Amino acid sequence: MRVMSATSPTTPAITQQPDWRTIEATHARIVPHIHRTPVLTSASFDALTGARVFFKCENFQKTGSFKIRGACNAIFSLSDEEITRGIVTPSSGNHGAAVACAAGWRGVPAWIVMPRNAPKSKCRAVESYGGRITFCEPRVSARAEACARLQKETGATLIHPYDDDHIIAGQATAAKELLEQVPDIDAVFAPVSGGGLLSGTCLGARGRSPSVRIFGCEPERADDASRSLATGTLQALESSDTIADGLRASLAARTFAILQRYVDGILLVSEEEIISTTRLVWERMKIVIEPSSAVALAPLLRPGAVSTLKLPMRSDGAAPKLGVIFSGGNVDLSSLPF
Amino acid sequence: MRVMSATSPTTPAITQQPDWRTIEATHARIVPHIHRTPVLTSASFDALTGARVFFKCENFQKTGSFKIRGACNAIFSLSDEEITRGIVTPSSGNHGAAVACAAGWRGVPAWIVMPRNAPKSKCRAVESYGGRITFCEPRVSARAEACARLQKETGATLIHPYDDDHIIAGQATAAKELLEQVPDIDAVFAPVSGGGLLSGTCLGARGRSPSVRIFGCEPERADDASRSLATGTLQALESSDTIADGLRASLAARTFAILQRYVDGILLVSEEEIISTTRLVWERMKIVIEPSSAVALAPLLRPGAVSTLKLPMRSDGAAPKLGVIFSGGNVDLSSLPF
Repeated sequence: MRVMSATSPTTPAITQQPDWRTIEATHARIVPHIHRTPVLTSASFDALTGARVFFKCENFQKTGSFKIRGACNAIFSLSDEEITRGIVTPSSGNHGAAVACAAGWRGVPAWIVMPRNAPKSKCRAVESYGGRITFCEPRVSARAEACARLQKETGATLIHPYDDDHIIAGQATAAKELLEQVPDIDAVFAPVSGGGLLSGTCLGARGRSPSVRIFGCEPERADDASRSLATGTLQALESSDTIADGLRASLAARTFAILQRYVDGILLVSEEEIISTTRLVWERMKIVIEPSSAVALAPLLRPGAVSTLKLPMRSDGAAPKLGVIFSGGNVDLSSLPF
Repeated sequence: MRVMSATSPTTPAITQQPDWRTIEATHARIVPHIHRTPVLTSASFDALTGARVFFKCENFQKTGSFKIRGACNAIFSLSDEEITRGIVTPSSGNHGAAVACAAGWRGVPAWIVMPRNAPKSKCRAVESYGGRITFCEPRVSARAEACARLQKETGATLIHPYDDDHIIAGQATAAKELLEQVPDIDAVFAPVSGGGLLSGTCLGARGRSPSVRIFGCEPERADDASRSLATGTLQALESSDTIADGLRASLAARTFAILQRYVDGILLVSEEEIISTTRLVWERMKIVIEPSSAVALAPLLRPGAVSTLKLPMRSDGAAPKLGVIFSGGNVDLSSLPF
């Protein structure tokens, strides 16, 4: 269940990562545009986990996911000249909606390259923010080709969904807020796909609380982060059909380097666990989360899971405080898995 | 759409209703046991209504609905001697779960009489709190007979779900809290079934803010409150199949008298409006509400609806502030209407 981070000779050199001052400046830049999302607790989930769980509810964030944090930072960091011909970006949905929204705030067009298997509701969301969708095959290589072509045709600026320091610094503000809202959290759990949110979570949480543990949570059907950290070599994931439709991408060298340095483990979850956890959150907490969000809670619901994490004893002797980042709440209500 | 309250010679004498001091004492009695639920806002719904809407989220309340307020007050108002043989109550679901929960806090059994067409998830909830269910036909008379029989057999104390001053005073605390959280609200909208929540809303809201307008919202398929206020005579509703499964009961003389005195109008909504509003709230606000909750918002979503309410101009000239009570969030995810 737990894969320790490993450093090997094949590890890429650690790039210059966003430092704490950059993250603070990022937060100041985007705070006029985004919500400071609430942190919810649930007696049900405290009982089920034996811990005290604090849910950072990015499902309540503008555009319905944390992605607006990074997109807003990237787009508001561009000069008027750099942005004048618009933005192009690949996305499985939420990043696309966020880029379309933030591009709209800057008054420029956004071209979003989406895989054909993206949920229809996420396509509609992109369009509702004025984004222009180009569909491609659900493969990493096909997306990159479509983006390159669009960039050439339109002269738009490419924003990568996670292989980008501005995006990572933006996503870091979710964990930064969580640690401001609940300062003495022992460990934070975030889903991992391309690693933008998880690497940002490392920087945002550790920046405020250096001893906090960070765990990435990943679908078994899209387990490249787990394999990459286990082998010390960036592993490819050409495609995935996990129901956690926001987690079908794979790490980039930039995010991998940050995870290698800071992540305490990657926890894998099955499709069945993702579905049952999604449903349980809807039923018990009365909030709508998407399956990708449930991935960050699912591993904690296994009997005895929290004790296997071997977290340090708290000085107050009480049950550990765990932060779980609910990444988004965009689901297609017409095609629920339950 | 709007039915003014009317006083006619057939109006029953206004009974002694819970006064403000009683409601304050009630709040103090139940506050150790219940949640002070949050008030949420939504830019989407502000845009759709042209108003500023404040949602009192009783879907986040313990047991998933406001019903725990009244049940807790009624049960904690009984002496040890009065309660020793347990509680019996009729319920379409949420009140039953609340009574079972509060009876559990007092350590006594609860017998819940439920109609055969109650959602399975609500039956499971009653059982999860230790309630013992007796099913009956979905008619008011059948419920009363089953309760009388159980009362005789067990010696338990009957708690009526709404024809009870302790219940009404308990439900009043939701609106009292809402007006504490947002003091300058112009009008409050609550669903109406037996009238416990709506009459409590009148007392709790008017007690804090005497000029606030109160509107009841009711399914067309269970329109007894609308007919009762229009005719000035308590109208019967033997049964209803509205999808708003919490709103299939009919007014009692006690709640009718309070509504006649304080309610500014009853707004009727169709089944289609209930379903589409439920879905829209899930999609836009990312919260799970049950169809009965959507009834209180649905009438505000019609084009121009807010202006037809003829609310007094605000002294600040801004859009009206409307409070909407989301009564609960208990839905059966296996049988959604969309």
